[in-house]
Amino acid sequence: MITWKNMDELASFDALKQAKPIDLAQAMRGEGGAQRVKAYTVPMGAGLHFNYGARPVNAEILDRLSAFAKEQQLTEKYAALYNGEVINTGEKRRVLHQLTRGQLGDDVIADGVNKRAFYVGEQQKIAELANKVHNGEITNAAGEKFTTVVQIGIGGSDLGPRAMYLALENWAKVNGKLKMKAEFISNVDPDDAAGVLSRIDVAHSIFVLVSKSGTTLETLTNESFVKDALVKAGLDASRHMIAVTSQTSPLAQSSDYLAAFFMDDYIGGRYSSTSGVGGAVLSLAFGPEVFADFLNGAAEADALAKNENLLENPAMLDALIGVYERNVLGYQTTAVLPYSQALSRFPAHQQQLDMESNGKSVNRFGAPVNYATGPVIFGEPGTNGQHSFYQLLHQGTDIIPLQFVGFKNSQMATDVLIQGSTSQQKLCANVAAQIVAFACGKDDENLNKKFAGGRPSSIIIGEKLTPAALGALLAHFENKVMFQGFAWNLNSFDQEGVQLGKVLAKKVLAHDTDGALKVYSDLLNI
Amino acid sequence: MITWKNMDELASFDALKQAKPIDLAQAMRGEGGAQRVKAYTVPMGAGLHFNYGARPVNAEILDRLSAFAKEQQLTEKYAALYNGEVINTGEKRRVLHQLTRGQLGDDVIADGVNKRAFYVGEQQKIAELANKVHNGEITNAAGEKFTTVVQIGIGGSDLGPRAMYLALENWAKVNGKLKMKAEFISNVDPDDAAGVLSRIDVAHSIFVLVSKSGTTLETLTNESFVKDALVKAGLDASRHMIAVTSQTSPLAQSSDYLAAFFMDDYIGGRYSSTSGVGGAVLSLAFGPEVFADFLNGAAEADALAKNENLLENPAMLDALIGVYERNVLGYQTTAVLPYSQALSRFPAHQQQLDMESNGKSVNRFGAPVNYATGPVIFGEPGTNGQHSFYQLLHQGTDIIPLQFVGFKNSQMATDVLIQGSTSQQKLCANVAAQIVAFACGKDDENLNKKFAGGRPSSIIIGEKLTPAALGALLAHFENKVMFQGFAWNLNSFDQEGVQLGKVLAKKVLAHDTDGALKVYSDLLNI
Repeated sequence: MITWKNMDELASFDALKQAKPIDLAQAMRGEGGAQRVKAYTVPMGAGLHFNYGARPVNAEILDRLSAFAKEQQLTEKYAALYNGEVINTGEKRRVLHQLTRGQLGDDVIADGVNKRAFYVGEQQKIAELANKVHNGEITNAAGEKFTTVVQIGIGGSDLGPRAMYLALENWAKVNGKLKMKAEFISNVDPDDAAGVLSRIDVAHSIFVLVSKSGTTLETLTNESFVKDALVKAGLDASRHMIAVTSQTSPLAQSSDYLAAFFMDDYIGGRYSSTSGVGGAVLSLAFGPEVFADFLNGAAEADALAKNENLLENPAMLDALIGVYERNVLGYQTTAVLPYSQALSRFPAHQQQLDMESNGKSVNRFGAPVNYATGPVIFGEPGTNGQHSFYQLLHQGTDIIPLQFVGFKNSQMATDVLIQGSTSQQKLCANVAAQIVAFACGKDDENLNKKFAGGRPSSIIIGEKLTPAALGALLAHFENKVMFQGFAWNLNSFDQEGVQLGKVLAKKVLAHDTDGALKVYSDLLNI
Repeated sequence: MITWKNMDELASFDALKQAKPIDLAQAMRGEGGAQRVKAYTVPMGAGLHFNYGARPVNAEILDRLSAFAKEQQLTEKYAALYNGEVINTGEKRRVLHQLTRGQLGDDVIADGVNKRAFYVGEQQKIAELANKVHNGEITNAAGEKFTTVVQIGIGGSDLGPRAMYLALENWAKVNGKLKMKAEFISNVDPDDAAGVLSRIDVAHSIFVLVSKSGTTLETLTNESFVKDALVKAGLDASRHMIAVTSQTSPLAQSSDYLAAFFMDDYIGGRYSSTSGVGGAVLSLAFGPEVFADFLNGAAEADALAKNENLLENPAMLDALIGVYERNVLGYQTTAVLPYSQALSRFPAHQQQLDMESNGKSVNRFGAPVNYATGPVIFGEPGTNGQHSFYQLLHQGTDIIPLQFVGFKNSQMATDVLIQGSTSQQKLCANVAAQIVAFACGKDDENLNKKFAGGRPSSIIIGEKLTPAALGALLAHFENKVMFQGFAWNLNSFDQEGVQLGKVLAKKVLAHDTDGALKVYSDLLNI
């Protein structure tokens, strides 16, 4: 029997607050530090490991986090989710994105169909289309092969798929898997679409229009923008566009598209990279087998998240240490720092995933919570960030927990030996060095050169950024966010906070404004 | 006579803390809100206006901020800077980036030369080279024109120039000013250089190597990487590379380069976009005239920052309202939200500029400060962010001040009319709507649909994102950061916090490690 409770109603949360905080700089020094880092590691699927040696926990705090996980029934709540219960209470919806990559529990029957079978069926339809495009069965009107795929979508229909594409583009290039180059149009700013159109060859491009409702303003506007360009180029737009949408959307049955693939209300935008939202563009870009490997990596991580033992459940562990940092130690922000240029936009995806899911002030029943919830998430790849904002991370007046990611091998395997080491070795040496610098600090008579240390981090380490590793990485953070939502008793699957802006923007466009809104509208010449 | 004092030594700061905070949601409603927004605006150069109607100030608080500016001698300290005093106390250096775009005070003589003349001279040398490349006087060995310029640099040699290039690329395309396409290699991750090299035509590319010291590990490594590629392609690397460095650097006199242009120790990386660091790549990409317009816009903003009247000094005003938000209201983070896809990487530049300058815990004399300093800065362009992290901004448990930027006109002037409005109008309507939604909120019986409001923002409004407008925007934020550094009594021009990581990374590469650092090195296979 599941009971949904606010965190501050739990005896185990009180106990957690009473635990003596560790002195991280001290704990990370010497042989004790070495033992910590060796011990505090857990496999997270697809060959990745989550190492939390430099997070501010010890055996005592981990015990209390375990007790918290049990009292807050995190495992049971996860089971409720993957067994198809209505976890998205605000919108009264199930939460089924994990069924796109595997099935962890009962058959989920909704809308009269088995949802796992439905998602797999859509994947197969996408795979068939992608294969036909790649082998030349589907071409443009001139009988020429398509070379570029352009995703038109915003939010979850853009950030996740774009981050995943960039993560694998170079890997695909050197492994003979880059079937088509992908581009993305998202912003309603007309210069976004105009800029992309100015650098692609529209005659050899397929556009993937992604909107669950079929009513997203930005996406429909950009569709028209693109159709205008296709018509101006003398092309038949319906031969260049496919739709990813829900079966009830106006786009679903339109003859304007070469094909339509379906999603449903049980997959939120920010959780949709493994659905057709990511599936169409990634299968077209890299081929269906690569997309399948990506899903398998995600499925491995999902399975690990079932583990009742906190120490063998990397997503739950990451989540609860985060709760401890946020609600006991009082840290407001988390930085995401992948030492991998291919993950340049992964922080932007994680920013949406986390901040849109858990940036809330009411619990899942709409009652206010009396504790801090989701942190601000930001980040850039290392080593670039080291030459940018790390100054503040090392010596600023606030402590910012850090999430590093690193891989032993590069994707393209082209490298150069300078001063006795390769670039890949330099990259890895830097992330190792940063973890210890942040945790241990360094004393100095000149306080301007002193590092206080005590700045926590974790690192996810993999062999190489492959499709499976990327899938596991994606799912790890989805599951982390889910567990944090359960811990805080939030509904992590709606986003009512985006509505007011939409309503007011419509008023501005209808010139139905007064007061400050009218003045801003005038200043902006609307 | 200037005296450098910590903020908490000032009577005017005590007075500021005693001021009654405003109820922003209340202040922004009705006719009073309209009057505020009309009144709280100030020109910031190049046709831009800084509107602070939705920041949490009123006449009383602005008066106290004026008193604070006087007591902390912000105008005098700025004058000391542009007159060439040694403002960078830690490194014992002058701070002269503004001399690259104008001269506000006395002649500054250093290293035996007039520094304004020196910077202008380097600009002229760069302009001559760029013109020769564009008109075909300088070509590759086969006598063919160069089509691409690739900047190799990291931190300030990357983020600012890259953000500026992206800001003007589409503008240049439609105005016949795109002379060469620019690419950027920054990360020591070998996949960064390998990825860029895999998509460009090296035979028609000029590489701009940017390193002030000539010793930056990432940049030298990437230089070797690129030279390998040039040699493999049968090309003479010295015909494809130029250097931007200091006169004392090992790169300065090398025959490895087609040309070398000089900077000096008086311009920090994050302030170097208007020096040769930005000048070479931007002049090659867009032509010297465009770069000159950009400098002129920056010079306009620099001149406005001299104004002793706080209400006519947009950079000082922005800075001090920020100090009020940070130190009196206690907000830790600031979001930068340009409603312009062309400014997609401007937040990343501003992140370095701000966080590396003011993310410090000691004052300019190396004594600890007892107040919060630089905030975390993050951001993405709108409307994209609306579909990502705005949920937390509207309904999260922390208040995050917001910096919007908007332009009345698009750069490319290609647009589409949907539902009675253009995309540009929709873009502008959204930013207007967001400001009011954040400030005023909306009540609702269902607390999940309630918006508390009271979330402050400012907006910079321009006609169009031109080179001059971009220059003014860049300089505004440089000057804002400078004034905040003066307010907090920091040295905003060094970055000792980046040193420890460098030292430890060298130890890792030399296998000179023990304890936790050795374990991380082993886990990463170094």
